[in-house]
Amino acid sequence: MLIQAKRGRWDASDVTGSGRGAKGEDGGFGEAMNITPFRKLVALPEALELVRLNSAQVGRTEEVAAAAAAGRVLAVDVVSQMDVPAFDRSAMDGYAVRSDEVVGAGELSPVALRVAGELFAGDAAAVRVEKGTACRVATGAVLPGGADAVVMAEYASEEGGVVSLRRAEPKWGNVSRRGSDIKAKTRVLSAGTLLDPAKVGVLASLGQSSVKVISRPRLAIVSSGNEIAEPGTPLGPAQVYNSNSYTLSSLVGQSGGESSILPRIEDTKEAVREALLKARADGFDAVAISGGSSVGERDLLAGVLSELGEILFHGVQIKPGKPFLFGRIGPLRVFGVPGYPAACLMVGQVFLAPSVRRMAGLPPARRTVKARLSRRIASRLGRVQFLTVKLADGEAEPVFKESGAITSLAAADGYIVVPDNVELIEKSEIVEVVLF
Amino acid sequence: MLIQAKRGRWDASDVTGSGRGAKGEDGGFGEAMNITPFRKLVALPEALELVRLNSAQVGRTEEVAAAAAAGRVLAVDVVSQMDVPAFDRSAMDGYAVRSDEVVGAGELSPVALRVAGELFAGDAAAVRVEKGTACRVATGAVLPGGADAVVMAEYASEEGGVVSLRRAEPKWGNVSRRGSDIKAKTRVLSAGTLLDPAKVGVLASLGQSSVKVISRPRLAIVSSGNEIAEPGTPLGPAQVYNSNSYTLSSLVGQSGGESSILPRIEDTKEAVREALLKARADGFDAVAISGGSSVGERDLLAGVLSELGEILFHGVQIKPGKPFLFGRIGPLRVFGVPGYPAACLMVGQVFLAPSVRRMAGLPPARRTVKARLSRRIASRLGRVQFLTVKLADGEAEPVFKESGAITSLAAADGYIVVPDNVELIEKSEIVEVVLF
Repeated sequence: MLIQAKRGRWDASDVTGSGRGAKGEDGGFGEAMNITPFRKLVALPEALELVRLNSAQVGRTEEVAAAAAAGRVLAVDVVSQMDVPAFDRSAMDGYAVRSDEVVGAGELSPVALRVAGELFAGDAAAVRVEKGTACRVATGAVLPGGADAVVMAEYASEEGGVVSLRRAEPKWGNVSRRGSDIKAKTRVLSAGTLLDPAKVGVLASLGQSSVKVISRPRLAIVSSGNEIAEPGTPLGPAQVYNSNSYTLSSLVGQSGGESSILPRIEDTKEAVREALLKARADGFDAVAISGGSSVGERDLLAGVLSELGEILFHGVQIKPGKPFLFGRIGPLRVFGVPGYPAACLMVGQVFLAPSVRRMAGLPPARRTVKARLSRRIASRLGRVQFLTVKLADGEAEPVFKESGAITSLAAADGYIVVPDNVELIEKSEIVEVVLF
Repeated sequence: MLIQAKRGRWDASDVTGSGRGAKGEDGGFGEAMNITPFRKLVALPEALELVRLNSAQVGRTEEVAAAAAAGRVLAVDVVSQMDVPAFDRSAMDGYAVRSDEVVGAGELSPVALRVAGELFAGDAAAVRVEKGTACRVATGAVLPGGADAVVMAEYASEEGGVVSLRRAEPKWGNVSRRGSDIKAKTRVLSAGTLLDPAKVGVLASLGQSSVKVISRPRLAIVSSGNEIAEPGTPLGPAQVYNSNSYTLSSLVGQSGGESSILPRIEDTKEAVREALLKARADGFDAVAISGGSSVGERDLLAGVLSELGEILFHGVQIKPGKPFLFGRIGPLRVFGVPGYPAACLMVGQVFLAPSVRRMAGLPPARRTVKARLSRRIASRLGRVQFLTVKLADGEAEPVFKESGAITSLAAADGYIVVPDNVELIEKSEIVEVVLF
């Protein structure tokens, strides 16, 4: 910002917006609502709330196969079209009987019945249990007509086509009645439910081979900066590889969204404007633009966004990630992510991932573990610090080097949040680590 | 088992193995190693250990695009082919200088230097900082030749091509030296590392557009049982829909594996044998066969498996899931999963999912929350009980109805583990809930 503010004085071409920098965007801020100028940072809770309020669930739904439905969110209530079980079913291996015929049966007073047949699970109930007879049944078999109870096999001895039963059963004893689990027309799962493996099994058990789920939010991922080269291509002098697009895209995928990595754009007002308009025209739900470390970028985005849509905030009391900008152009959310890899990662974790989960209809996901801090750390009052740590032997070891460093990301397992009113945390204090 | 034991007496055709049931498989057990007859159940820890020992990481690797690498496990060390940064880089917006020329600079003793040029990130360093000059630089810009420090913009005032610097900087002050983050030939990530979004970003920042990862374990999923109908098809009389294949397939996918749902097989020795041999011939790492509720299935599988390979255990001191069978045919692991949906789910969660994660090279995943039990529960001594619960208002509410019930799965958020030496847990006791 500092050099940027100066550049207006240095070079008149910047004022026209044809150069890399652009000054005077602050003048446009008044046109949009809820704008906080960059120099007046918003507090973290306020920033989180603004992102939350602007992350409504996507309105689109789609039909997916049951086998591919795990992890998706139901778009509709699932109502059973049938009774479950669909028929009176034996709950035990044993003998289907008429319960009034085994009244008083016991070890010393067995009841003898002729075995009229045998039914396994899946067999149609061709047998009928008439008076004086029983039918051998396996667990899961249809209860044959005439029968209204099952005597368990351990209380039975069969010889020469006659079974001797040593136990009475009340009416419907050891029988799973038709509809006892689920009655037809009952709502079994509600819209908005996350389909875990058990619930996918429930869908299948109701006969559904596919199901209507909430569509995944679609995000465009853009890196801006003249110094950015794509991985897999040779690195020119003064260039660095694009890592942010890959970090952000991975975060989106982990959070239930789909992302498209768009080609790197130049640090010009025209390129930023074009990228935003294209993301909107292509129907993306959000665009995440990460700046290079080139200074012009932040103001370029703010300037363009204040013309095309609205800036909801620009600058947050956090470290790293202070320059984060959030706004929208109609339905398109715009995440202006700082270019330094560590700052990009933290803004992605703290703002982007929860927003995508919310758009996807997913519940918040925050995996944390507690650990002892391996060494004393200092923080600055007045801003929330996100400190990347490595977990080893139950200790959380700070690995943050500088915002530009890659190695701290390579080693980090997660981060701790140092509140804005905390100046230091002592060695061996217990901290909560949010896992990546 | 009970009716099964009897059936040998009832029907001579069973002995030949042509019927649905088959007796006498216990006789075959002696041929294989480590066999525990079904009536002698193994304890849960022993069963878990046997599964663990037989879930070695798959040996196959594959190259995936960086953008698709999140959640995968590195098959190789990642060694940087370059210095990072690849050049001496300005860490600040400011002025690149020769440090010996700003010695003693301060608020009351500014040093004036001619501005020889300007460099943004990505610009090739066409400028050289000769004696008596400085170069305006943006964060991320190449440090121009001749310069060895950067004075921050807030300590500078520029007017008419001359900058007045009010601060000294030591040699390499505000400069990120070439290779200071990562030196070429350094190992940055180790084989076996789980690629989270930050680490995918690290890969990209090293210029890697793709990476070698451990291949996903491949599982064949088979449902056996004459009563099983596929979802999406009409349900015949006495039939139930196949839900287990979908539950198991979803669990495999969640655990880093790939699954193929194979067609339902009949409850015959031939069909089971054919399914196992085909799974082995097709190179699957494991097969999960879930029985219908048909009684014959367990013994069929045990019989066939003891002929083709080895049974590692058959029957575990747990509820539900007691009939679980585990073995292998050469490299093919065989999970014989009970047919009742609730038992299938628990065996899938407790045995199959951790096994798949291990084969995939993933660390154990066990998300748990603590909650108060909503009501007193009883359990039977001598076996571990897995009790499905729903979480509501911080309370864990048991939802288990019976092994065959679907509704308990529809409502469950996870399960609690009641140890084998616990007979009851009081209402309001704190329990740990393993989340689905």
